[in-house]
Amino acid sequence: MNNLILPHERVDDLQCKGLRLIQNPKGFCFGIDAVLLSNFAQVKTNSKVMDLGTGTGIIPILLAGKTDAKEIVGIEIQEEVANMANRSVKLNNLEDRVKILNEDLKEIPSKVENYTFDVVVSNPPYMNSGGGLLNPESMKAISRHEVKCNLEDVIYTAFKMLKDRGSFYMIHRPHRLVDIIYLCRKYKLEPKRIRFIHPNKNKKPNIFLIECTKYGRPELKFMDPLYVYTEDGQYTEEIHNIYGRDA
Amino acid sequence: MNNLILPHERVDDLQCKGLRLIQNPKGFCFGIDAVLLSNFAQVKTNSKVMDLGTGTGIIPILLAGKTDAKEIVGIEIQEEVANMANRSVKLNNLEDRVKILNEDLKEIPSKVENYTFDVVVSNPPYMNSGGGLLNPESMKAISRHEVKCNLEDVIYTAFKMLKDRGSFYMIHRPHRLVDIIYLCRKYKLEPKRIRFIHPNKNKKPNIFLIECTKYGRPELKFMDPLYVYTEDGQYTEEIHNIYGRDA
Repeated sequence: MNNLILPHERVDDLQCKGLRLIQNPKGFCFGIDAVLLSNFAQVKTNSKVMDLGTGTGIIPILLAGKTDAKEIVGIEIQEEVANMANRSVKLNNLEDRVKILNEDLKEIPSKVENYTFDVVVSNPPYMNSGGGLLNPESMKAISRHEVKCNLEDVIYTAFKMLKDRGSFYMIHRPHRLVDIIYLCRKYKLEPKRIRFIHPNKNKKPNIFLIECTKYGRPELKFMDPLYVYTEDGQYTEEIHNIYGRDA
Repeated sequence: MNNLILPHERVDDLQCKGLRLIQNPKGFCFGIDAVLLSNFAQVKTNSKVMDLGTGTGIIPILLAGKTDAKEIVGIEIQEEVANMANRSVKLNNLEDRVKILNEDLKEIPSKVENYTFDVVVSNPPYMNSGGGLLNPESMKAISRHEVKCNLEDVIYTAFKMLKDRGSFYMIHRPHRLVDIIYLCRKYKLEPKRIRFIHPNKNKKPNIFLIECTKYGRPELKFMDPLYVYTEDGQYTEEIHNIYGRDA
């Protein structure tokens, strides 16, 4: 199994059913967002799931561990990153259920059969564009900035992949809330549930989770806020539960 | 001055510079929303302001007291309610600065010179439609439900009244957030600031305030949450400050 890991890479324990993930410490490493999104998405038994911009493959691997999805497809444009994600899939013996495609998500609607997925998830780049970047081709920049795709590409592709009444889950930053709501409704992915994540009870939200239903009826439900830290700087009980303690 | 008040009406002290308001206890009486919206709106000296669906005239009267607006126009479709608002304007000697028009806000773009207001505010009916109402012609129903106008009418009229870079302020309920954001962007009123109001620190928001700029650059700023009550059921300091103690 050692030949799956390259010399500059490290292997992290995902604290969930013994799952592990290969990461490149010099690239974009997963954070709380991927864990929150994997926990938020509701995936039924035998579902087909797609993750747009999968990066290290963290979300498909966590969903494979947490759910009984039949097939989870991660799309990653960067060859080196997709290759690493693929090796993480092998490391966990998940090849039967998880596929990593080294593709541009903008090409997916013309390459993968449309309207066939139950769930699409995405933790896309947060920054509006890569225009001012020193090195827009760096792996970290592509993972963080809208260099290779923008929000509209992600949301349009989700629309094209989802079945009617399928669910789209995304995690993003509040300053893009207007773009996200506008584009989701434009592409018939009606926002149904939203959850704001605050650093603690005294701070405004800095992350949010959104669930949309393709062709859903308009009516947005607010969930209780999620606080990451207690007032004395410890993880809250709910964050402990999300991170899991069964490892 | 007594002839301004009809036998079934009452006069309330607005706790702000001696301002008073005539209300009909059987009709829709103002609540925290009008006070919060009047406090949230930023109105510069000599501004022209319009309030869409002004009801009792509470918002124009509070804004006349709190700001140096030159002219504040309240639009109210119900004749009896507009008449009462007009008498409240007289009661406060604000006829020079505050006008109440008994008009359908949908007609305003064809009756009032377009693109001439600095600020438009609205505390519109919250309920999606009047379809299931027992008595859709009752005064309370018209104030609370979208019987006579819907959100799109309000937002379109705001667009038609505002100057370029003018500001639109609204207070509404979170379950309509998607409709509001979608329609504001559709009509070039870009949401710039949002503030969620929670009953207390342990509850999700039940009201929000939004500020939009006509032709503004996309980027939404979250403000700190506003909590109405402390954990022991008292008004928070901020709510006390908004309600004012100078009366």
